[in-house]
Amino acid sequence: MKTNAGLFFEDYCVGQVIDHAVPRTVGGGERALYHALYPARHALYSSDSFAQSCGLPQSPLDDLIAFHVVFGKTVPDISLNAVANLGYAEARWLRPVYPGDTLRARSTVIGLKQNSSGKTGVVWVRSEGFNQADEMVISFVRWVMVRKRDEAAPAPQTVVPELEKAVLASELIVPDGLSFAGYDTGLAGSSYLYSDYNIGEVIDHVDGVTLSEAEHMMATRLWQNTAKVHFDATARPDGARLIYGGHVISMARALSFNGLGNVQMLAAINGGAHANPCFAGDTLRAWSEVLDKAETRDPSVGALRLRLVAQKGSTPHLRGDDGKYHSNVLLDLDYWAFIPR
Amino acid sequence: MKTNAGLFFEDYCVGQVIDHAVPRTVGGGERALYHALYPARHALYSSDSFAQSCGLPQSPLDDLIAFHVVFGKTVPDISLNAVANLGYAEARWLRPVYPGDTLRARSTVIGLKQNSSGKTGVVWVRSEGFNQADEMVISFVRWVMVRKRDEAAPAPQTVVPELEKAVLASELIVPDGLSFAGYDTGLAGSSYLYSDYNIGEVIDHVDGVTLSEAEHMMATRLWQNTAKVHFDATARPDGARLIYGGHVISMARALSFNGLGNVQMLAAINGGAHANPCFAGDTLRAWSEVLDKAETRDPSVGALRLRLVAQKGSTPHLRGDDGKYHSNVLLDLDYWAFIPR
Amino acid sequence: MKTNAGLFFEDYCVGQVIDHAVPRTVGGGERALYHALYPARHALYSSDSFAQSCGLPQSPLDDLIAFHVVFGKTVPDISLNAVANLGYAEARWLRPVYPGDTLRARSTVIGLKQNSSGKTGVVWVRSEGFNQADEMVISFVRWVMVRKRDEAAPAPQTVVPELEKAVLASELIVPDGLSFAGYDTGLAGSSYLYSDYNIGEVIDHVDGVTLSEAEHMMATRLWQNTAKVHFDATARPDGARLIYGGHVISMARALSFNGLGNVQMLAAINGGAHANPCFAGDTLRAWSEVLDKAETRDPSVGALRLRLVAQKGSTPHLRGDDGKYHSNVLLDLDYWAFIPR
Repeated sequence: MKTNAGLFFEDYCVGQVIDHAVPRTVGGGERALYHALYPARHALYSSDSFAQSCGLPQSPLDDLIAFHVVFGKTVPDISLNAVANLGYAEARWLRPVYPGDTLRARSTVIGLKQNSSGKTGVVWVRSEGFNQADEMVISFVRWVMVRKRDEAAPAPQTVVPELEKAVLASELIVPDGLSFAGYDTGLAGSSYLYSDYNIGEVIDHVDGVTLSEAEHMMATRLWQNTAKVHFDATARPDGARLIYGGHVISMARALSFNGLGNVQMLAAINGGAHANPCFAGDTLRAWSEVLDKAETRDPSVGALRLRLVAQKGSTPHLRGDDGKYHSNVLLDLDYWAFIPR
Repeated sequence: MKTNAGLFFEDYCVGQVIDHAVPRTVGGGERALYHALYPARHALYSSDSFAQSCGLPQSPLDDLIAFHVVFGKTVPDISLNAVANLGYAEARWLRPVYPGDTLRARSTVIGLKQNSSGKTGVVWVRSEGFNQADEMVISFVRWVMVRKRDEAAPAPQTVVPELEKAVLASELIVPDGLSFAGYDTGLAGSSYLYSDYNIGEVIDHVDGVTLSEAEHMMATRLWQNTAKVHFDATARPDGARLIYGGHVISMARALSFNGLGNVQMLAAINGGAHANPCFAGDTLRAWSEVLDKAETRDPSVGALRLRLVAQKGSTPHLRGDDGKYHSNVLLDLDYWAFIPR
Repeated sequence: MKTNAGLFFEDYCVGQVIDHAVPRTVGGGERALYHALYPARHALYSSDSFAQSCGLPQSPLDDLIAFHVVFGKTVPDISLNAVANLGYAEARWLRPVYPGDTLRARSTVIGLKQNSSGKTGVVWVRSEGFNQADEMVISFVRWVMVRKRDEAAPAPQTVVPELEKAVLASELIVPDGLSFAGYDTGLAGSSYLYSDYNIGEVIDHVDGVTLSEAEHMMATRLWQNTAKVHFDATARPDGARLIYGGHVISMARALSFNGLGNVQMLAAINGGAHANPCFAGDTLRAWSEVLDKAETRDPSVGALRLRLVAQKGSTPHLRGDDGKYHSNVLLDLDYWAFIPR
């Protein structure tokens, strides 16, 4: 068998380091496709001159491009035999990615726990992305439920990593040079800054987007994520293709421009759940809640901690009495981002 | 409400200047997507070496990219609450846009007229696009019917701008350096030049393209045009998504290569109507009529005034006895363009 | 008639040279779209730094981009009135194509044979692509069945070119500078090298991709291939749009990464058949067979001759007792490619 069968639960051990294959150079073509696939309008990622007015050398690629590329590279080694993506934690963006950068990815196994069924186990990995100068650009933890190859294989010692419930504001990295001191709210498209947002405030992002098969497949392929459930309509009895969860994240983040137009740079993901599967034909809407606020080392740059929820149709409540997400909820993401003060 | 509710009729006053948000750097990625979305084949926009043989430093981005980007930027301020796009006039391309240019847009209100119903009014704006050197690249007038927020609000003084029925040939701008003196018709793909076209001549562009949801949404997003009717299948009772009129313009212009292969550069739009709505599944065809011819300041460059009509199915006539467009007509565009003499 | 009616069988003569229209500059935008449209993962075409570690100045564009661009340019002159694409032979890649290169195409008629019906004939052409330095980048022979304009026109003298059944291994061109001496199989994503593959070995590439209308139309347009059967749903009674055969080639080649991850560069196509038409909704799968192996002038570079078959559904056999391809077979391609030794 020269094809990649992926790793099974018993193939992982705590401390194991996996260098993922296929480094990827990203550039203006990836940016243009990102703008074609998502209604992204944050000025810092749209205009070189706006980015330069914020102290950066040019407009970086959308922060989620770095996330998707690194995530995509981990798929063949981490989630090819995954039953479910269970969660994210401690994601931090450490350095912007610019056109021409070449990204590679590496994961370290930081936790293992066999399920009581004996058929599957949970694998925790910390995945890191590096540019061509070997500088880390992103780091995140995710955990997935993975099948065992052999149910009779012995269970490993259980190691459950201790993960921060949220990245500490003091650990957010303001990119070198970034300053919002000369920020132009007119060009940015929103007049609401750090001090205008209050903890507990909820913002409905209003607009809806009906998803199509061609678009989610192109988006997923662009990040070299080859998980077959996204592409092969014969993989499920109902003929549906499961939409990559990252597509939902990018769509919801882009829609959040309408209400959060100055929330320019992603700084961290504290946690996230893909609450329900998403399919072509679903009309995605999003709303946000302000969870926390913090200052940073730069007096012009504030940080907002936001909950971003994507859903289809209406949801009287996020979760039912049983604690489970309403079936219309697609994404519940908790993140930090930078906004001018 | 931190989301953009858009402007209503009573929010506009004549002389008002609106600087639109989100400047945009465009490049080779946008060009590649333009070629993927439209069957564009004009050599000047396809090949650096061909453009250089015409005296330009490199291949500019398709002229309609400049139009779409500037149009898209005006949407949040001009047409978010529009009932209808009523018309275009006096559009002129003033300078080519090259990969790496950053475009921003500004509109000036030049006319206002409340409708007799008291519920809506017509707003005329002149929209202008600028590059990163603050050079104007495009200027056009459009007028839209906009809802009032409060029907009881007093009507403004009526100001109806005087608009040219057509841009004068003497006002067309031949880009600096452009010369068709060494033009290669073999590489361009057509042997028909300025003198081969006669006023009144009609050209059927033959080919048809069946439109898809994914393509028109990607095209519209690429210009950061976020008008929800193009993306949200729940916005209309019939579940259809209205296709952005500019998608029809670009598709028809690209199809017109077959018969007008040397009509390289757009110079002006004299007027235009989106005669009927267009939806995915429609098969678009186009034909052109030569309306006028003119010389320019450069002896190698002629100008043709053309009517470009896009339609689905067949139309025995453009308009019925009632003066209304046949229901199959999608676009009726009157423009000037440059062709070698 | 100023539109292109294409050439008919009686318009061709042996020795005729046709310079095709519309040179095309290709770059990072075309690469990004290639990655969005196909699950391409070969590291040499994904990463500048990987390509540099193999002795190239930067990551070239996928070899099939060169093929598609040149093929697309030949369509208006060679296959606009074609009834069928009958075959390929003697295709060789002679030089990598890099971002910024401008490609043009030329064809020479090398064979003619009128069919016994008197209504059509077979035209053989050798098509060549050149970059902006007039260096040949690709050369291939294809033959098509073309309609006669006038069935009464006399038959030309029959000339059937002698074509190699396969390109000789000694005629494969290893690009200047290419060396796999420092090849990193970890980054490439596969540990199987030249010596691991045996003649006769068959590899199932496992993954399936369900095709969509929007994607195949975008892919085909991107190469400026304007054959109307790919775009116009009214062109056939059943409303189906025929998928460009090159789309199937690119999809199958990209899927072959899973099992042939180190088969980096295409060197030649020995022959190929589009066995059956392909339509949106088909789920494409691929398998390969190792047909031959050869050394090259560079001790680090080996060549594999591979058969690449794309199919939908299952096929108990490639061909039936009547010698015809099973109706599920879409592509049967015989090619040479370079792999590290």
